[in-house]
This record gives sequence, C-alpha cells and structure tokens, in this order.
Amino acid sequence: MIKGNHGAVIWLTGLSGAGKSTLAEKLVRHYKDQGRPVEHLDGDIMRGIFPTGFSRREREEHIRRIGFMASLLERNGIIVVASFISPYRASRMEVRRMCGRFIEVFVDASLEVCERRDTKGLYRRARKGEIKNFTGIDDPYEAPQDPEVTVNTEGASVEESFAHLLSQLGPLIN
Amino acid sequence: MIKGNHGAVIWLTGLSGAGKSTLAEKLVRHYKDQGRPVEHLDGDIMRGIFPTGFSRREREEHIRRIGFMASLLERNGIIVVASFISPYRASRMEVRRMCGRFIEVFVDASLEVCERRDTKGLYRRARKGEIKNFTGIDDPYEAPQDPEVTVNTEGASVEESFAHLLSQLGPLIN
Repeated sequence: MIKGNHGAVIWLTGLSGAGKSTLAEKLVRHYKDQGRPVEHLDGDIMRGIFPTGFSRREREEHIRRIGFMASLLERNGIIVVASFISPYRASRMEVRRMCGRFIEVFVDASLEVCERRDTKGLYRRARKGEIKNFTGIDDPYEAPQDPEVTVNTEGASVEESFAHLLSQLGPLIN
Repeated sequence: MIKGNHGAVIWLTGLSGAGKSTLAEKLVRHYKDQGRPVEHLDGDIMRGIFPTGFSRREREEHIRRIGFMASLLERNGIIVVASFISPYRASRMEVRRMCGRFIEVFVDASLEVCERRDTKGLYRRARKGEIKNFTGIDDPYEAPQDPEVTVNTEGASVEESFAHLLSQLGPLIN
C-alpha cells in the first residue's frame, strides 16, 4: 500500500454513448495531476487487447477478469477507473465483492439520448441488424439500483457532469 | 511508482513439478518480509479463477492476459512473481515485450525427474491418457534459450535452489 493513499475501484457503468469513457479519462487526468497512482481500464481498449463476444456468458467472463485485475491493482494502493457498459447487475455485484473499496458510478443517459448522439455510429448499425447483442437494442441493460454515484449526462455539458462526479467522489476518495 | 522501488516481473517457467510454485511462494514471502509491494500470479490459482483449455491458442490467450495484468502491476511499482508452465517461447517473448523489467527464470528439472516426483499425480494420469495436452508428455515444452536466471532443482534441496535464485536475482532487483 502506498503511504497515505488507499486504492479504490471507481466503476462507471451505463449505455454506449452515455459518456463513460469521456468522464473516466477526465477522472484519470485529475488523479494523475494530483500525483496519485491511477490506472484506466476501458471497455473498448480491453476488447481490443482481449477480443471476446457479446453473449451473456462472454460478457460475464470478461467483466470477471477485469474485476480481478482491478482488485489486484486496488489492493496495491492504486485508483482504478473502469469504464464498461457492464450491463448485468449480478456481474457488477461480483466485481464489487472482489474489491475492497468499490464505487459504482451510474452514467445515466436514456437510450433515446444515447441513440441520438450515436458518437460511434453503432446504434444505427445495431438498428439495421449489422451488430447483434447490442446493449439497449437487442440486449438488456440492468441499471444500478443503489449506485454510490449517479451522473446524469443528458442535459449537462461534459464539464458540468464531471464537476458533479468529482463532488460526489470527494467524500468517498481520500 | 512507489518511491525508491521499481516494479519487476519475475517470470518462472518450467515443467509441471519442476518447483516453480514452491520457489515463487518463497520469493513472495521474501519480498513481503522486506516490505516490498509484491503479487503472486500462479498458474494453478489463475486457472481456478479463469478456467481455460490447454490448446496452443488457449494457452497463448491465457498467458497474454496474465502478462497484461503483470505489466499493469509492474508499472505501478509492484514486484510480480509469476509461476506458469508457459511452454511456448513466443508467448513468453510476448509478455517480455509488454513489461518494463522482465526477468525470465528457467526452473530447470528434466522430464524424468519431474515425472518421478509427480507431486500432484498428474504425470501418471497423463501417461494413462486421462489428461490430454500435458506439457512434456503429449504437448511441447520450449525451454528458454537465454533466460536471465536458471535454477536447476534436480539435485538441490528447496533451500539450496532458493538461495541460488535469490543470489541471481540480487543484482537484477534493486
């Protein structure tokens, strides 16, 4: 454990396009600027390194591996910022149990808004049937029931959402 | 990075029964006693958490994941002691490339000696054909060609092998 610092797993969950990666990147930058040890585990990047499918079982296995990785980093005093759709409540609960300090952040934006943004053009492709098992379209998203933090990104700018996230994390991350 | 400490990945490779886990556990204890941040990633334990097969492709994927995990820990100043048969040279090379300071330790004992020890009874089962793709029996083991450290455990006690390992690691781990 690094002196004076405690690790934590800050787990951002939400639909594709809700703003998870954007907020996660700003959070990582924030902790780096403070000189804190921090690692970003991001869904798109991890799928690039470790290709896997989108069935329930494959998603669960994938999140379990990420969760284990996060827990190893955390217990060594590192702040882990994880941004994953992670649509299943049971999966997120499993990761929570692996970790010491687990902070679930629900990056909340409605399907309508995410689909309208469609930053990566994935919703359009999913609607056309070119992508299967797409969360929100033909695959479920189980929203957190009692997350430590909720950030609604619908009506807010990135700066506003980030300020809200930081203020909510403040009392949780020392 | 933890002040004054550098991370490292100490990667023990060798046949089943060569003594990897035993040496790895002693090494982890040693660094813990020194107050160094250390994590042990062990083949049997990791397969317990993340079941996978024994085909070349599955072994490679598994080692790649472990290597990535090790590299994240290492770059945060943690000493990672990894004990995996990891039979393929290309696979170990891939992990080496991911890491900053990678120390390959060849835990060397001949197939004959390992089979005679047969601490887990696995060689007997592999000879009977009850286990397939068993390294050394019906699956290859590609010994390191230029490892940083070689520990021959054939004629030596655990204490002797460990003392040799420590003395070899000394100049490499500050």
